[in-house]
Amino acid sequence: MSHEPVVAIVGVTGAVGAEFIATMDKRNFHVGKLKALASARSAGRSIDFRGQKVLIEELTPHSFHGVDIALFSAGSGISKKYAPIAVKSGAVVVDNSSAFRMDPDVPLVIPEINANRIRDHKGIIANPNCSAITALVPLAPIHRQNRIRRVILSTYQAASGAGAAAMEELVESTRAHLDGRPFTPKVIPLPYAFNVFSHNTAIDPETGYNDEETKVINESRKILEDDDIAIGVTCVRVPVLRAHCEAITFECEKPITEDEVRAILSKAPGVRIVDDRAKNYFPMPIDASGQDDVLVGRIRRDLSDSSGHSISMFVSADQLLKGAALNAVQIAELLPQRAMA
Amino acid sequence: MSHEPVVAIVGVTGAVGAEFIATMDKRNFHVGKLKALASARSAGRSIDFRGQKVLIEELTPHSFHGVDIALFSAGSGISKKYAPIAVKSGAVVVDNSSAFRMDPDVPLVIPEINANRIRDHKGIIANPNCSAITALVPLAPIHRQNRIRRVILSTYQAASGAGAAAMEELVESTRAHLDGRPFTPKVIPLPYAFNVFSHNTAIDPETGYNDEETKVINESRKILEDDDIAIGVTCVRVPVLRAHCEAITFECEKPITEDEVRAILSKAPGVRIVDDRAKNYFPMPIDASGQDDVLVGRIRRDLSDSSGHSISMFVSADQLLKGAALNAVQIAELLPQRAMA
Repeated sequence: MSHEPVVAIVGVTGAVGAEFIATMDKRNFHVGKLKALASARSAGRSIDFRGQKVLIEELTPHSFHGVDIALFSAGSGISKKYAPIAVKSGAVVVDNSSAFRMDPDVPLVIPEINANRIRDHKGIIANPNCSAITALVPLAPIHRQNRIRRVILSTYQAASGAGAAAMEELVESTRAHLDGRPFTPKVIPLPYAFNVFSHNTAIDPETGYNDEETKVINESRKILEDDDIAIGVTCVRVPVLRAHCEAITFECEKPITEDEVRAILSKAPGVRIVDDRAKNYFPMPIDASGQDDVLVGRIRRDLSDSSGHSISMFVSADQLLKGAALNAVQIAELLPQRAMA
Repeated sequence: MSHEPVVAIVGVTGAVGAEFIATMDKRNFHVGKLKALASARSAGRSIDFRGQKVLIEELTPHSFHGVDIALFSAGSGISKKYAPIAVKSGAVVVDNSSAFRMDPDVPLVIPEINANRIRDHKGIIANPNCSAITALVPLAPIHRQNRIRRVILSTYQAASGAGAAAMEELVESTRAHLDGRPFTPKVIPLPYAFNVFSHNTAIDPETGYNDEETKVINESRKILEDDDIAIGVTCVRVPVLRAHCEAITFECEKPITEDEVRAILSKAPGVRIVDDRAKNYFPMPIDASGQDDVLVGRIRRDLSDSSGHSISMFVSADQLLKGAALNAVQIAELLPQRAMA
C-alpha cells in the first residue's frame, strides 16, 4: 500500500484502547484514518485523536472494510469472533488478547526480542501477556548470552490488567474503606482496598496454577523459543493502579555474576536500570507508570544458590504501555504494509 | 514466684503495644499488675486494660523494679539500652526488636517450633522478625519431615511492620491521593499510596540484600537449627494495613507431593489451610488480619522443578499478632516464673 494506513482500534473505550491512542500519537505513528470501534453501548460518543474528534462506531462484521491494521483489545471472545473477519477483510490484526497467542500459526512478539517473527504472520500477530512481557524484556537478552534454565517469579499486579472498570473499582472501594462505607465489588470478585489476592483467573485443578500463571509459562517458552525453560510463577494482585512489579529469580546454565547481568541489561533495549543501593531506590509502580521501559533493579546474587548460577532482581513496567498498548503499536510499526513517511 | 506476675509493656502506645494488651486480654494471660511504659511524650496518658485505666509511665532505668515479665516493642535502640536493665532488676524480657535475636545466648523462639529453647534463656528471649515467623510456622513442620534445603520467597508486607505511624501514613497518603492533594511522607521515605516498594531497610553493599531480607535468612537458620538451609528472599512493601503475605517456593531433600504438604500442614499448630481452587479463594491480608493463624494456600507443585522436590505456596499472617504480639505473649505464657491459675 502506498497510502497511510487505515487503523482500526477495537475496544477503544477500554484502558488499553485509550493507551493505543496516546501511544500512536506520542510515537507519530502514521495513520491515514482512524476507526474507533467499541460495543453498541459506546457507539455515538467520540474520542480525541490528534486534535480531531473521531466518532466511535459499533463493532460489526462490516467494520473492517478498507482497514489496513486492526489493534484489538476487547477481550478474548471479541478477538476470536472478529479478528478472523478483519483478516479476511485484508487487515493485519495485532491482538492484545490471549485468543491466538499459543496458535502455532500466530507469531507472539515482543519487538525487542523477536521482531523477526513478525514476517511469519498469516494475518494475526499476538501481543503477549503483560506479566510475560515484563519478565522477558530483561530476561531474554540474558538468556541469549547464558541460557536461563529455571525462573521463579512472583508478581505484584496492578488493577489495570483487569481493565478500566477494575481501576475505577480499586479507587472507589478504597474511598469507601477510608470513609467506613460498605462497598459491593462488581468487577473484581474480592475486596481490593488495602488487600492482596491471588490472581483472579481460573485455576487448573490438576496443576493448581491459575490461567495468568499458565500464560506466563507457555508464552515465555514460545517467545524465547525454548520449550525446556523451567518456570515457576505465582501471580498476585496488589492495590496498585497501573504498573506491575515482579520479583524474579533465575538460574543460568553457566555461572553468572550480577555485574555481567548489569552489563547485559545496560545495553538491552526497553530496559532501564534503577538500582541505587545507597539511596534504597529501586523500581516502583509509580515510577514505571507512564514510562515505556521496564525498570530493573535489586540485581543481586540469589543467596539460595551457592553455585553462582542464580540472580535475583525486581522489575516494574507499565501494564498498559509495555504490557499492552506500547508493545502492540511497536509491532504495528514493524509491519511491512505500514506506509513509511 | 507465687503471686500473679507484674508485667511491663515497653512501647505500650505503639501498634504492637496495643496488640500486647489485646492479646493478653483475649488469652486470659494472668497479670498481677500491668506497668505501661512509653516515652516521656506519652507519659501521663492512660490505657484501658480489663476495664481499668492504667497510667502510662515514662520508661526510665528504674521502671523495672518488681517487674516479673517485660514485653519490649519500642525499637532496637530502646531494647539494647533497657532490656539488660530489666534483666538486672529480675525481670524476664521478651523482646520484639532485632537487638538480641542473633545473640547466641538469647533463644529466638516461635513456640509452635522451638518452645523447648525457652528454658535456655539468660533473661532475654527474642521474638523473631515477622516475615520469618510467617514463613516458618508452615515451613518448620515440613522441614522436620523432609529437610528443606532451599527456599525462595517474596514478601508482600503491610504498613504495620513499620509501626502505627506508618499505618496512619498509608491511610493519609491514600486519602490525599484520592483527593488529588499533595502529601509529604514523614515515616515511610517513599510514596506509599497505590505503590509497591523494596523494603525500606538499609542495603548491605556487598550482597545487595536489605536488613529485612538478611534477618529472614539468619533468623530462619537459627530457629530451624540448620545453618545449611539456603534462602533467597525479596522483601517488598505493599499498600496493605496489617497482614503480610509471602509467595514461598521450597525444595526438599527427598521428593515431596502437594498432598504430603497438605497432610503435614493440616496438623501443624498455628496453621490454617485456605486453599479453595474451585472458588479461587486463598490467603488474603484482610482475612488474616485479627487472626492468630498463618493462612496457607496455593499449595502446588513448583513447575520449575521437574524432579518433584519443590512445592510453592502463598501464605498470609497478621504482622501485629503472630508476627509480633501474639508470638511474644505465647512465649511469656511458657515462662516457668509465670504464676499459673
